[in-house]
Amino acid sequence: MAVDAVEEEPRLVPRGSLPLSVTPDDVRAAAARLDGVAHRTPVFTSRTLDERAGAQVFLKAESLQRGGAFKFRGAYNAIALLSDEQRARGVVAYSSGNHAQAVALAAAQLGTKATILMPHDAPPTKLEATRGYGAEVVSYDRYEEDREQLGAALAAERRLSLIPPFDHPDVVAGQGTAALELLDQAPGLDVLVTPVGGGGLIAGCATAVKGVDPAIRVLGVEPEAGDDVRRSLERGERVRIEVPRTIADGLQTTAPGELTFEIVRRLVDEVVTVTDAQLVDAMRFLFERLKLVVEPSGAAGVAAVLGGAVQGARIGVVLSGGNVGAERFAALLDSQDALRPGG
Amino acid sequence: MAVDAVEEEPRLVPRGSLPLSVTPDDVRAAAARLDGVAHRTPVFTSRTLDERAGAQVFLKAESLQRGGAFKFRGAYNAIALLSDEQRARGVVAYSSGNHAQAVALAAAQLGTKATILMPHDAPPTKLEATRGYGAEVVSYDRYEEDREQLGAALAAERRLSLIPPFDHPDVVAGQGTAALELLDQAPGLDVLVTPVGGGGLIAGCATAVKGVDPAIRVLGVEPEAGDDVRRSLERGERVRIEVPRTIADGLQTTAPGELTFEIVRRLVDEVVTVTDAQLVDAMRFLFERLKLVVEPSGAAGVAAVLGGAVQGARIGVVLSGGNVGAERFAALLDSQDALRPGG
Repeated sequence: MAVDAVEEEPRLVPRGSLPLSVTPDDVRAAAARLDGVAHRTPVFTSRTLDERAGAQVFLKAESLQRGGAFKFRGAYNAIALLSDEQRARGVVAYSSGNHAQAVALAAAQLGTKATILMPHDAPPTKLEATRGYGAEVVSYDRYEEDREQLGAALAAERRLSLIPPFDHPDVVAGQGTAALELLDQAPGLDVLVTPVGGGGLIAGCATAVKGVDPAIRVLGVEPEAGDDVRRSLERGERVRIEVPRTIADGLQTTAPGELTFEIVRRLVDEVVTVTDAQLVDAMRFLFERLKLVVEPSGAAGVAAVLGGAVQGARIGVVLSGGNVGAERFAALLDSQDALRPGG
Repeated sequence: MAVDAVEEEPRLVPRGSLPLSVTPDDVRAAAARLDGVAHRTPVFTSRTLDERAGAQVFLKAESLQRGGAFKFRGAYNAIALLSDEQRARGVVAYSSGNHAQAVALAAAQLGTKATILMPHDAPPTKLEATRGYGAEVVSYDRYEEDREQLGAALAAERRLSLIPPFDHPDVVAGQGTAALELLDQAPGLDVLVTPVGGGGLIAGCATAVKGVDPAIRVLGVEPEAGDDVRRSLERGERVRIEVPRTIADGLQTTAPGELTFEIVRRLVDEVVTVTDAQLVDAMRFLFERLKLVVEPSGAAGVAAVLGGAVQGARIGVVLSGGNVGAERFAALLDSQDALRPGG
């Protein structure tokens, strides 16, 4: 697979010597902003999981967050921090997934209008859900048009504020509130495990965790086919990969964000990978043992724990989202059976 | 289908003139006993469900209870009320489903030994789960042997206390704690909806609800093919039906219990039925919208709400259990698609 370094702007100050763009105080302020708005999602435990992990494992069910994923935290925090004038004009976001619904939902909560760029072939259920939150959906052809350019053009033309999916300090701070809650619900963790896509969730969580106790390790999990962050850490600079072929549609990023990578580089202890088969096993485990519906990306942390990749006596895991259709879930189980020896 | 009246013992006192065998105080005492032992399960809401119901709907997720079903409440309460001497000798239960695991789990919690009679062809996962809680599993041939007789013989021979699945006041009182919690978590309900199998859950819940406010209606839901309680209410006496053919394996009872029927007859306002296709629709809805895994029986209340059978502005629904394998869930979706017009 081709791996290219991402072109960076020249820097006047060497990287690593500046304060990070998101602080533990930013996460705490976001938590105050989200209090009573975002769900304080429950934490689940499983004796079977503990036995298989040889540890106590605490699962933070962001699958039960509003909109079905942690994304609501960052979207709401970012929109809440806009000026009244900005909110009067509205916000725009591009996403085929959980971020779109999160922005639509948060915008409705905060009395502003959301315009969401979605590929014209997005699943009808996602289009309906996004419109259901009161957002205007603008379709684009994902094979012909560049969504980032379209988003920027739309933002300029309509004077909308763009809410990026991960590479923004207010979005990162919002996502970190999931870890802050988990540390409160399950004190004394040795390690916190989160999935890694663009890096917004892990950057926010690492900021929160290291602010509470720098000795708590933070471990990220990527799909084997989409290990752009692990490679970037190895190289010491952001690398871009081809769009990864993985069932974890929420982790199909091709490069870490600039802001998120800087935080990951300095605060995250390790990034490991899991296969798609491990993701399906983890989804099945969460379904049967915990009675929780978790999407492929959301199961990455449990996949790493079940695969023995996580050391620690008290392990916290963020189940990042639950947006998977029942038919797709059934098809994923089937496809896995077909791949198994003798299956 | 053949419908026979269940033979009753002759009565010295006319039915209906005696105090009921379970009181609201019994349910409150059970709640104190279960405090810190059973999970106070979360209550979920869904904007989409509210829109479809034209009401506010509060879902009590007993699927997230210990052992994956409300059954732990009754089993624990009944075993906790045994004498020290009885607990020293141990308990016995017969069930191929959730009650077996509940008794095994509660017995382990209370330091007594459980012996569970299970059909020799029970799913290996259920056998393992029951043994995993430390219970001794005794197999029987479900086509050749009578489990009630076997259970009674085993209880006599080993001097074990039999914990029946529903027709026992301490079991009924324990199940009622689910409703007591829900009334606290979602005050001001007009109606409470629960599935109806042998009647333990609805009898306990009706006792709790009418003790708090007799104006709150209690509505039971049976599978269309297994409407023994609805028929019994119509006839004014317990009737026995053939083993119903329904996907709701937790509701395949052939007659209400004697004790539970007396409570249902006097406290439950209405019993309605739902089809298997409605159960699958409700399971899919709970999976996709609530991110919750609910077994066919557990989805009966939501099926009734989605089917328009429940009137009220604030509706409470007990999701009674979540014990369904991922493969069975997938197969149920498939079978439904095959039944649909053009499917």
